[in-house]
Amino acid sequence: MSATYGTTVRVTIFGESHGKGIGLVLDGVPAGTPVDEGFIRSEMARRAPGQNLLSTQRKETDAFIIESGVFEGRAEGTPICVLIPNSDQHSKDYSLLKDNMRPGHADYAGRVKYGGFHDYRGGGHFSGRLTAPLVWAGALAKQVLAAEGIVVGAHIARLARVEDRPFAPLGETAEILASLRTQVLPTLDPAAAPRMEAAILAAREGLDSVGGVVEVLALGLPAGLGDPFFDSLESRLSHALFSVPAVKGVEFGDGFGLADLRGSEANDAMHYEDGVVKTLTNHNGGITGGITNGMPVLFRVAVKPTASIARPQHTVNVAERRDTILTIQGRHDPCIVPRAVPVLEAVTAWTLWDVLLRDRKGEGL
Amino acid sequence: MSATYGTTVRVTIFGESHGKGIGLVLDGVPAGTPVDEGFIRSEMARRAPGQNLLSTQRKETDAFIIESGVFEGRAEGTPICVLIPNSDQHSKDYSLLKDNMRPGHADYAGRVKYGGFHDYRGGGHFSGRLTAPLVWAGALAKQVLAAEGIVVGAHIARLARVEDRPFAPLGETAEILASLRTQVLPTLDPAAAPRMEAAILAAREGLDSVGGVVEVLALGLPAGLGDPFFDSLESRLSHALFSVPAVKGVEFGDGFGLADLRGSEANDAMHYEDGVVKTLTNHNGGITGGITNGMPVLFRVAVKPTASIARPQHTVNVAERRDTILTIQGRHDPCIVPRAVPVLEAVTAWTLWDVLLRDRKGEGL
Amino acid sequence: MSATYGTTVRVTIFGESHGKGIGLVLDGVPAGTPVDEGFIRSEMARRAPGQNLLSTQRKETDAFIIESGVFEGRAEGTPICVLIPNSDQHSKDYSLLKDNMRPGHADYAGRVKYGGFHDYRGGGHFSGRLTAPLVWAGALAKQVLAAEGIVVGAHIARLARVEDRPFAPLGETAEILASLRTQVLPTLDPAAAPRMEAAILAAREGLDSVGGVVEVLALGLPAGLGDPFFDSLESRLSHALFSVPAVKGVEFGDGFGLADLRGSEANDAMHYEDGVVKTLTNHNGGITGGITNGMPVLFRVAVKPTASIARPQHTVNVAERRDTILTIQGRHDPCIVPRAVPVLEAVTAWTLWDVLLRDRKGEGL
Amino acid sequence: MSATYGTTVRVTIFGESHGKGIGLVLDGVPAGTPVDEGFIRSEMARRAPGQNLLSTQRKETDAFIIESGVFEGRAEGTPICVLIPNSDQHSKDYSLLKDNMRPGHADYAGRVKYGGFHDYRGGGHFSGRLTAPLVWAGALAKQVLAAEGIVVGAHIARLARVEDRPFAPLGETAEILASLRTQVLPTLDPAAAPRMEAAILAAREGLDSVGGVVEVLALGLPAGLGDPFFDSLESRLSHALFSVPAVKGVEFGDGFGLADLRGSEANDAMHYEDGVVKTLTNHNGGITGGITNGMPVLFRVAVKPTASIARPQHTVNVAERRDTILTIQGRHDPCIVPRAVPVLEAVTAWTLWDVLLRDRKGEGL
Repeated sequence: MSATYGTTVRVTIFGESHGKGIGLVLDGVPAGTPVDEGFIRSEMARRAPGQNLLSTQRKETDAFIIESGVFEGRAEGTPICVLIPNSDQHSKDYSLLKDNMRPGHADYAGRVKYGGFHDYRGGGHFSGRLTAPLVWAGALAKQVLAAEGIVVGAHIARLARVEDRPFAPLGETAEILASLRTQVLPTLDPAAAPRMEAAILAAREGLDSVGGVVEVLALGLPAGLGDPFFDSLESRLSHALFSVPAVKGVEFGDGFGLADLRGSEANDAMHYEDGVVKTLTNHNGGITGGITNGMPVLFRVAVKPTASIARPQHTVNVAERRDTILTIQGRHDPCIVPRAVPVLEAVTAWTLWDVLLRDRKGEGL
Repeated sequence: MSATYGTTVRVTIFGESHGKGIGLVLDGVPAGTPVDEGFIRSEMARRAPGQNLLSTQRKETDAFIIESGVFEGRAEGTPICVLIPNSDQHSKDYSLLKDNMRPGHADYAGRVKYGGFHDYRGGGHFSGRLTAPLVWAGALAKQVLAAEGIVVGAHIARLARVEDRPFAPLGETAEILASLRTQVLPTLDPAAAPRMEAAILAAREGLDSVGGVVEVLALGLPAGLGDPFFDSLESRLSHALFSVPAVKGVEFGDGFGLADLRGSEANDAMHYEDGVVKTLTNHNGGITGGITNGMPVLFRVAVKPTASIARPQHTVNVAERRDTILTIQGRHDPCIVPRAVPVLEAVTAWTLWDVLLRDRKGEGL
Repeated sequence: MSATYGTTVRVTIFGESHGKGIGLVLDGVPAGTPVDEGFIRSEMARRAPGQNLLSTQRKETDAFIIESGVFEGRAEGTPICVLIPNSDQHSKDYSLLKDNMRPGHADYAGRVKYGGFHDYRGGGHFSGRLTAPLVWAGALAKQVLAAEGIVVGAHIARLARVEDRPFAPLGETAEILASLRTQVLPTLDPAAAPRMEAAILAAREGLDSVGGVVEVLALGLPAGLGDPFFDSLESRLSHALFSVPAVKGVEFGDGFGLADLRGSEANDAMHYEDGVVKTLTNHNGGITGGITNGMPVLFRVAVKPTASIARPQHTVNVAERRDTILTIQGRHDPCIVPRAVPVLEAVTAWTLWDVLLRDRKGEGL
Repeated sequence: MSATYGTTVRVTIFGESHGKGIGLVLDGVPAGTPVDEGFIRSEMARRAPGQNLLSTQRKETDAFIIESGVFEGRAEGTPICVLIPNSDQHSKDYSLLKDNMRPGHADYAGRVKYGGFHDYRGGGHFSGRLTAPLVWAGALAKQVLAAEGIVVGAHIARLARVEDRPFAPLGETAEILASLRTQVLPTLDPAAAPRMEAAILAAREGLDSVGGVVEVLALGLPAGLGDPFFDSLESRLSHALFSVPAVKGVEFGDGFGLADLRGSEANDAMHYEDGVVKTLTNHNGGITGGITNGMPVLFRVAVKPTASIARPQHTVNVAERRDTILTIQGRHDPCIVPRAVPVLEAVTAWTLWDVLLRDRKGEGL
């Protein structure tokens, strides 16, 4: 029952990399919410593969079909089902992988869990391709949030040890966030992107892959969103973020860096600014006690290097119960980080949308 | 609705720091589960305050009353309610804090969320005291897991820049984990603890506080636990871990360090060891694709320095809508990290218990 | 995991008839909600036993202690925990019942489910005493609903074949509903109550028990509450109603009577009345397509005769695996129906409150 | 968020009567579960319209496409998505219904709820057509239950005042249940079906519709399934049953008839039969305390007459805010009861499957 997440807006995903298609059901979208398919397509395109040498050469347009829940350009209030058919499958590439477990992948863990009954081709349901439905939901969420003055943006903070400058903890301009959307390798420092590109191409040359860190910023959130304890905003965001394949770390504000500060350094002093409570620093990433404090929400996400690499690797053949050496064929991303950027933005956007809708409930009672 | 977490075993917590008491309801505990109150008390004692100069001087024995759900020493299968009365409250210490927001605390965010209606004394429901019920649930979980050969342990990996040696990624002996339980400042390197103690006492002297990193290890988990996507084991663990006050970062395996590795370095090569699939390294922390792979589950948690410090701090008075300088009175922990160790172990234990129970469902069908 | 219900306001109950006490946790109550303890006590008194010969002679004042979540007379927004200590237990009455299963009771089903580990005394967690926490939650809900102009009332429509007149399908006055609250046997027809009382006393004399039907009316609900399919208002209400012990049937509007009508008779014709859409009849009980249509919500609930009777009954001794004849000792209700009235009202009130809060979510987005 | 139901196996439905199609996502189906598409088609055919004069003349083959989650004839363990395209839509029939509210339908309630944004054609998401996905899920559940010796069957107990004989409370043979599956109007008494058919055709002639009562029986369930209080088996079944359009009443065992019995009549005496505990009667319908007692589970469901009738009816035009007379065009069922039989069986089957899977969880711990 891992396919559904959310409380007020609920996302359910389905599909496998090499089956008929993938998709999602979005339940709880308020009736009348405008659905701008052009904007959604532009977000899907940011994630879609096959656009350049930085990603896998599998060509998927990620065209989608809205099966239900949208009528005359608006959400009906009833469940929205979206299908994204698979088109460019090379299933024969995967026959080797039925019994030979790819290191770093879900193959072995998934095989134990599902007793060998799941579709192993291209990672099946574990495929990064399943992030396309997440982007669809995020694109709709972004439209709703934008109408409330809330913007989510992200950049590659670090890739193969190349560092971008971090987001300013007190926020960036909407223009800067908008410009990030247009970059293949979104960075704040224009000098960082070419160095990152070179690192990716070098990894590709070396039949290897590289990882990185994505930094996400949400501007315009009101104070008071979230909960203490089990539905802390950090809990809900991290739950969603760790569901994205290859994510291995999440830290809010200064995160692990906070462990090295003293309280007198880490506490964000407060003051009034034009009648509004603000903090002078933002070590806490806009969240204290699990609840937004009105400052920008800021966090970083660690993305591991793509597990699929073309080099021979030591592994096991579980059918024959023996050690073996595996050379993975097929088309793979030398670095998943650039495509992870819109996915992590999307996951953030619909989690925030869900929390916003939930926390506004019952205000009139 | 932040008070409940879990799917098969469900934990609900309640209470405020300076109200009548705090407690929990545990629903879904299988009938017949032995409830060893002595062991639970020993776990509660690990978290209890007032034991030495390293923690707050508030004396709370954290004695508990089982209101329901346990009969003749065993879980009945019906909801277990446990009350932990408050005993050593100094409510007058807190009157200043009604309108003056403590920096780094939930005070302001909580006030916006609850419109000023919540009990502000001692942090109210946001108090670290609410982690006592989490430890109760964890102590029960540990007993169940131990009977299955599963052990959870933790140490202070870093405190005020003092580092302990990390857990061996391929696991530690049960003896080492057991010895950690007996230490006030649990470290693997005996030289680290005195240096950490000195750092805490220095912070205390300086009317300041320090943070740190806790590393958690779970041994003996079978492969195949967890789910792809929204109920990935990382999602479920991080959800629970980020619900613990002061936690600001979670990373599995090499975590943020994975961002700097190449795929050929990060992939954990597999082989057969006595007929069982093992990996030669454990960069992934025992979880791939959201599911355990049979290796030790390993993660680190960043704990920020205690927000309550005795130094004067710049902040706001929200009743008078003006800037002010606040000097917090009362008794506080100069470092929450040592007391966070049993809490993070506990949260890990009951999350794993929940996942174990859930994933065994329906095996016979 | 049967102890929690609700989506926006969540009720968790715990306790056993002959343990330390029973109680509830209410999570999600909006901060600032007034908590009128006097009114709550008056509702608890309506359900409390031992007041006359019509109910069990067990004396329980059902005094309650608010452990958390209420501060200075208002909900804080954090979880409200309420304890209701047990006071008048005669546990020795129950020793016979450890192995001898009472016919019509949960004894045997519960013993199989819980493997014999649950507290059998007085029905344990299955006891009708667990409806006291339901009434507490309902009393709070009624206060909130009343402020919105929503009133829930109920009467005994039928008891031991004695019939009261039914509620007028288009609604009753608030005065009539208020007067029902003051009656020991709430009926619309003053002649019905004495005949019902005589029937109960006759059953008591005969060491037997009688059942009945309770009719519930909710006035003032806006149109548009509820959902199609799985969260239809009928689904959510029936889910809650069937959780009350002894309830065996629920029907909305004409209910089973609709099966005998033609569409032309059953369809409620619509018209405008002072600019508001109304129906001329209310065969559908105010709900169509799972959603309120602005008419009074009306339903009936079948309550079976109390299973505990003093006559000898054929049953089994499961320890000795043999047939036996059981004569139940102890104090029991000859008819549970009058005490079920406030319980069913309460369950209705907090289900409606939950739906109201949920359906108002996100209106501003 | 009304589109999802279940805890261990979770059903999510989507679609509208006159959109691209309808369908479902089934999450939590254990890996390896055989998926017999032929049997599923035979169940779908029992519900499909257009087969005779007793139902609507809309021809829908209800052919389905499995998009995901099934590999080589077995469930993978990952989400199963099934699409059922719409084929025989006459959308023009519905233009009149945009603003003219059909009495007895969800039209007005839905319009208020969704603010007029939902697809009004053919009832949109409220359409009885959405029961096709329920039957799909039920067909899979029936296969799983059959392998466990559990059989669910149903008959028309009453239709337009024509009565069939009731199920024997202590159970029927598997042969009798199997024969019911093959009948267009499934009855136990062969003389009842022709009289029911005549009543339906008469209603059709009279531009009217008729309702009825469906009785459902589940054989072979072990004792101990279900829960006290909020997840009582009655709560969970009624929740699912009331989500089926047109259902207005549910009663277990003798249901409303229990209100008229004395305890000495209603209590089902217990005895040992070949070493197994059985009851001599089954007034409680196989459930006591919310939990199965090992006897057949037996309940009745009231189905109201189809709201769509061809006669002119008094109603409102909400665009012009005036009273009007509406004559519904299009193709409609003169009686929904025969098609409701497989739907109610299906809903019962997957609710029982969900409870079974859940209650077996953690048995080894």
